[in-house]
Amino acid sequence: MTALAMNAERLLARLHTLGQIGRDKAGRLVRLAASDADKAGRDQLAAWMAEAGLELAVDAIGNMFGLWREATGPEAAPVLLGSHIDSVIDAGIYDGCYGVLAGLEVIQTLKEAGLRPARPLAVAAFTNEEGVRYAPDMLGSLTFAGGLDLAVALASVGTDGSVLGAELSRIGYAGPHAPGFLRPHAYVELHIEQGPVLEREGWQLGAVENLQGISWQRVTIDGVANHAGTTPMAMRRDAGIAAARAMLFLRGLATASNHPTVATVGSLALEPNAINVIPARATFTVDLRDPDEARLQQAEAAFAAHLAALAAEEGVSISTERLARFQPVLFDAGIVASIEAAAAARGLRCRRITSGAGHDAQMLARICPAAMIFVPSAEGISHNPREHTPPRDLAAGANVLLEVARGLAGC
Amino acid sequence: MTALAMNAERLLARLHTLGQIGRDKAGRLVRLAASDADKAGRDQLAAWMAEAGLELAVDAIGNMFGLWREATGPEAAPVLLGSHIDSVIDAGIYDGCYGVLAGLEVIQTLKEAGLRPARPLAVAAFTNEEGVRYAPDMLGSLTFAGGLDLAVALASVGTDGSVLGAELSRIGYAGPHAPGFLRPHAYVELHIEQGPVLEREGWQLGAVENLQGISWQRVTIDGVANHAGTTPMAMRRDAGIAAARAMLFLRGLATASNHPTVATVGSLALEPNAINVIPARATFTVDLRDPDEARLQQAEAAFAAHLAALAAEEGVSISTERLARFQPVLFDAGIVASIEAAAAARGLRCRRITSGAGHDAQMLARICPAAMIFVPSAEGISHNPREHTPPRDLAAGANVLLEVARGLAGC
Repeated sequence: MTALAMNAERLLARLHTLGQIGRDKAGRLVRLAASDADKAGRDQLAAWMAEAGLELAVDAIGNMFGLWREATGPEAAPVLLGSHIDSVIDAGIYDGCYGVLAGLEVIQTLKEAGLRPARPLAVAAFTNEEGVRYAPDMLGSLTFAGGLDLAVALASVGTDGSVLGAELSRIGYAGPHAPGFLRPHAYVELHIEQGPVLEREGWQLGAVENLQGISWQRVTIDGVANHAGTTPMAMRRDAGIAAARAMLFLRGLATASNHPTVATVGSLALEPNAINVIPARATFTVDLRDPDEARLQQAEAAFAAHLAALAAEEGVSISTERLARFQPVLFDAGIVASIEAAAAARGLRCRRITSGAGHDAQMLARICPAAMIFVPSAEGISHNPREHTPPRDLAAGANVLLEVARGLAGC
Repeated sequence: MTALAMNAERLLARLHTLGQIGRDKAGRLVRLAASDADKAGRDQLAAWMAEAGLELAVDAIGNMFGLWREATGPEAAPVLLGSHIDSVIDAGIYDGCYGVLAGLEVIQTLKEAGLRPARPLAVAAFTNEEGVRYAPDMLGSLTFAGGLDLAVALASVGTDGSVLGAELSRIGYAGPHAPGFLRPHAYVELHIEQGPVLEREGWQLGAVENLQGISWQRVTIDGVANHAGTTPMAMRRDAGIAAARAMLFLRGLATASNHPTVATVGSLALEPNAINVIPARATFTVDLRDPDEARLQQAEAAFAAHLAALAAEEGVSISTERLARFQPVLFDAGIVASIEAAAAARGLRCRRITSGAGHDAQMLARICPAAMIFVPSAEGISHNPREHTPPRDLAAGANVLLEVARGLAGC
């Protein structure tokens, strides 16, 4: 293969341009799915696709595709690169946008170099990945992959009372194509890590081999409220103490093994929440993740057994409610190997890594070989204006995407 | 001494009458200090004092005294019985009112029996014991005992923005007497336990020998917010986990000894409090009580040392703020013994007990021999409409108060 030079400057310039679109009055980046701000971002992306000579196709759930069909017939399965351009509230500029604009840059680079791929290439921007305005998150890619009925997806009601289908029509991105009209040959998503591992351990690149399964629960512990001064320790049924024990059990569960299990209690409330009243009720959430489904189930079972013992020991009653459950995703071993090979060829320090966050790639993995490439996130910060990846790392990631795409498309 | 029969029916009738005064539209008993509801309660109490032939004296902070000065000069130090009639929001009918109305009943009983005490007797109702509307709690008795400057007490601003002095004038209970105009010979306060010990252990009466010291702190733990999915357990600085460890340390501290130390974390908040974000901050309160000052200080020191170790182990920073600190109070051994003797004479099962809650008696103990008598609280419930003590126990407590008062007053 000929060595190709990415136009890293154009990629970075576009990232910063797109990052200025959708700022609110306070200067925060708020490009929620199917909003006016999202329309402005989509319009800019469409203009860049046109500038690169790509054909824009929009499907009925608003997913945008920039198609390059030079050497092949219109029906051939394309190599798809992409991510999303919707954002959280007060977002950074890299999450999602980096993968979309790098995909565009890869195709534009190949095109400008006069190469003729054996397979078509396309870049995708999926609708409502963040899930801030509409539920579920990754709605566009899930619908595209056939995991969610189009009518149900379009009827999704936003946190602001809006209906997704109506909003897509309003902003002009309810397209004519049926979701899934494109059957990808493969999907590769370049993304910032959104975690601290690569930076902390000194890697330039992550070859994402799998994505954690997620188990979300809400736990409610009912004890008995009583006077903090007059109730002897032995006569208490303290819901807060029981919650503290459950929290430490979860931490122990996740750290005791050599496995990458993570467990988090991020949200907790006590009632009546008064300084001199023993808590009658504690409500908290549990976020449990593991790339191995069997191990995730073991962790869930161990926690359930702990809660049963805890209820007896503390004289409290405990109920749980499942909030969300996703099975782990295993990415395509061949693509992962090609990511490692491309990194090695460029002398980049690359490790295999598990994605702790959800991504569009997990939906695409249902219908085609898929994988992801991670670049480091400074201090692991994401969903925050302080989100940052150094330009050198952004260029390195895009160059590896370029090589992997060339291999998959045959050029 | 002649055996005297208390008029238990009149006492119970008055308790229920007073308990209907100060109901809000929802039917809740809300007789906050110096409110219109409090005025109505005070007016009823003043009417009963007049009915009993007592002379009403009100001091400048609104404390009410019903004086019986039959056999002695106006300057002789009286035996003072009493408590308070202000209430919390949605209160029960016993807390405070029982001690005031029983004190009134004791004096009225002695008077109606034609006895002539060697010392005068008086019944007191102290202002703002609950501390719900104005801070601090036990404000009236504290001011009476010289522990709070009158001008400062009158300037106290309520949770509703009102000023105590103005409100006392408005309801007609800013009296002419200087707080402390009366120097009690002794003070005895009859009260419901507000805890479960007497009922749980089958006692009819508690001779309160001391009152716990109270240490209130607010603890703030600062960790680092991070993605719950992408941050390995070993890289976390989880403020919530550190808080859970502190909670369990406190519970261990209180239960490890044979001592009556109690420790409670009643209030806790996590930030940002999101299911998939590691807590950056945990703020919680600590309520630590012990009847022994040295042991209370030991517990405070042990907790401080634990927090220092915890900060290092969890990679978090921890700060504490003292919210309140009261030293334990030792009641008068002679009065406590006379309570036990009176109980024994009536065949009542009586144990010595520590008060876990604060009471006006702890302020009076600064200026005269003082003690308290407890009767059982059903299920330990207090500050709640479900507050209850069976009539038989209420009568037994009042009869013991009668005997103790006779002994102190000499009749």
